[in-house]
Amino acid sequence: MSRSNIVFIGRKPILNYVLACMTLFKNGQDEVMVKARGRSISMAVDVVEVMRNRYMTDITVNEINIGTEALTSPDRPQPTNVSTIEIKLHR
Amino acid sequence: MSRSNIVFIGRKPILNYVLACMTLFKNGQDEVMVKARGRSISMAVDVVEVMRNRYMTDITVNEINIGTEALTSPDRPQPTNVSTIEIKLHR
Repeated sequence: MSRSNIVFIGRKPILNYVLACMTLFKNGQDEVMVKARGRSISMAVDVVEVMRNRYMTDITVNEINIGTEALTSPDRPQPTNVSTIEIKLHR
Repeated sequence: MSRSNIVFIGRKPILNYVLACMTLFKNGQDEVMVKARGRSISMAVDVVEVMRNRYMTDITVNEINIGTEALTSPDRPQPTNVSTIEIKLHR
């Protein structure tokens, strides 16, 4: 899966991400990956649920993976572990 | 799956839930389901990741499902939709 069909969830309003996913599908992608870390994981699930219940009911969730990433920052001696989620959508 | 091997994630500290899951496994369950709604979804992923990285490395994630529940409350005329996650763990 190339980087061009991945939507990273950040701190924008939820509908921005719903629209980003829908645009990818409308442009011909048949697989889109929604990725999030930390507190944004809940919003990633919201994005997928809003999209498939309200806007594109033909989307299916193919695969969900969770994991841990070690983030390093110049301010901290130890890396910080953060949980991640990847939700693979198919149309 | 009976209700006795389900851990519902709420607002307690994360290690309470890690311990709850570990206790179920230690008592002989070979499958434990972690469930959460709304903002607690991120913590459900944290619980699973902390447990399998730090305390019980023989746990595998069998299945992850996401969905939507309509919550009704006496204060509101319309039901509120909330996202849900279910993470099925196997030992």
